[in-house]
Amino acid sequence: MKKLVLLRHGESTWNKENRFTGWTDVDLTPKGLEEAKNSGRLLRENGFAFDVAYTSVLKRAIRTLWIVQDEMDQMWIPVNLTWRLNERHYGALQGLNKLETALKYGEEQVLIWRRSYDVQPPALTPEDDRYPGFDARYRDLASEDIPLTECLQDTVARFLPYWNETIAPQVNSGKRVLITAHGNSLRALVMYLDNLSRQEVMELNIPTGVPLVYELDDGMKPVRSYYLGDQAKIEQAMQVVANQGKILPQP
Amino acid sequence: MKKLVLLRHGESTWNKENRFTGWTDVDLTPKGLEEAKNSGRLLRENGFAFDVAYTSVLKRAIRTLWIVQDEMDQMWIPVNLTWRLNERHYGALQGLNKLETALKYGEEQVLIWRRSYDVQPPALTPEDDRYPGFDARYRDLASEDIPLTECLQDTVARFLPYWNETIAPQVNSGKRVLITAHGNSLRALVMYLDNLSRQEVMELNIPTGVPLVYELDDGMKPVRSYYLGDQAKIEQAMQVVANQGKILPQP
Repeated sequence: MKKLVLLRHGESTWNKENRFTGWTDVDLTPKGLEEAKNSGRLLRENGFAFDVAYTSVLKRAIRTLWIVQDEMDQMWIPVNLTWRLNERHYGALQGLNKLETALKYGEEQVLIWRRSYDVQPPALTPEDDRYPGFDARYRDLASEDIPLTECLQDTVARFLPYWNETIAPQVNSGKRVLITAHGNSLRALVMYLDNLSRQEVMELNIPTGVPLVYELDDGMKPVRSYYLGDQAKIEQAMQVVANQGKILPQP
Repeated sequence: MKKLVLLRHGESTWNKENRFTGWTDVDLTPKGLEEAKNSGRLLRENGFAFDVAYTSVLKRAIRTLWIVQDEMDQMWIPVNLTWRLNERHYGALQGLNKLETALKYGEEQVLIWRRSYDVQPPALTPEDDRYPGFDARYRDLASEDIPLTECLQDTVARFLPYWNETIAPQVNSGKRVLITAHGNSLRALVMYLDNLSRQEVMELNIPTGVPLVYELDDGMKPVRSYYLGDQAKIEQAMQVVANQGKILPQP
């Protein structure tokens, strides 16, 4: 049985401020650090070990991986970083507060930008300070690969080649693979693995800081997938993600 | 001008206990963490940036690298781990206190084991718990590559192929390379770069936690090399290394 573990990074400073983060390189909060540590502990206690890890080039995912590796005493495994595992690029929404954006554009429009498969948020211009082409880590990308904005379909399109060409062959060869990444890049992968429709992926909420284990057969089809840990807490974490950007009544 | 930076990890728990560490995977002390942080700060303040990093598969070197990357805001650069950058394997001396070993075998013998080019310390047996073949991180090594003990000559012999085939081509292509490693694997490299004799390398003391910068010409010959930071502190740090294993008068 081939095994693969997906892990969404824990709370970041902009998760906490409820801002659209995308490719902005914000760090984890103390709670996010704690979530990563718990994930590592859970994996260790459940007897997991990895041969290789993949992550994005964003520090909230890298730090999550480092903490997990440290907790599992597996700092020595090879780690591959790729921009193709980055969070979805949120275009000109990056930096804006989700609630403010909802009040300005309407809750429905924000939900469309957040959860539609093929509607892109407003794009950056290449002159914008937020344009990834100004960042050294993307200097080797072809300019047509540098996004100005992305819908989930775009994220799927730029992640899947990396899955097919690089990660899947490792899993298929029996390597135990860990991927630490972001809400939308992991959604792209789950959509592909579980063969979800566009509608189903819109309703998929991957909680932060909870390892998602896939067991795959020889044809790389999922036989079983499950979240590791306390199931009630996981339900609660999934609900938190679903509620972001909704205008909730004051408690 | 091609640039290369070498960094020896800061104080580890067994440095502090003055034990022969070798391939034992001990962690940094709080002082060692601080040394790594200072190195990162120095590199940042002096305008350094890296394209790729190399380190051993031992956590004291990996953690040093992580801290430097964090301090420089360069967590996203590719990192390559190799057992060929590991510390010299100290054979059956691993775990023994240097001073106790000096009292037992004589200071001169210990100095020979520590500083001779071609005299191996007593070897492990493959049944010994300390035999690297029992450790998952070395399971892909050919058994003839797994050391039972090493003199510096052996460390040079297993490191140089990696330098020539993997690291040197990166430096030569203009990539800015950082290597975080160990006293003896870095000594092996400095011996090669500076064309030191066996006698000269015995007298070479690389201080912990101080970046050593090499500037190389197009033929990969060093034009200049220097330690980054306060020169008086560096002299002091080099003296500390030289005094380990000496039976010093009580202060």
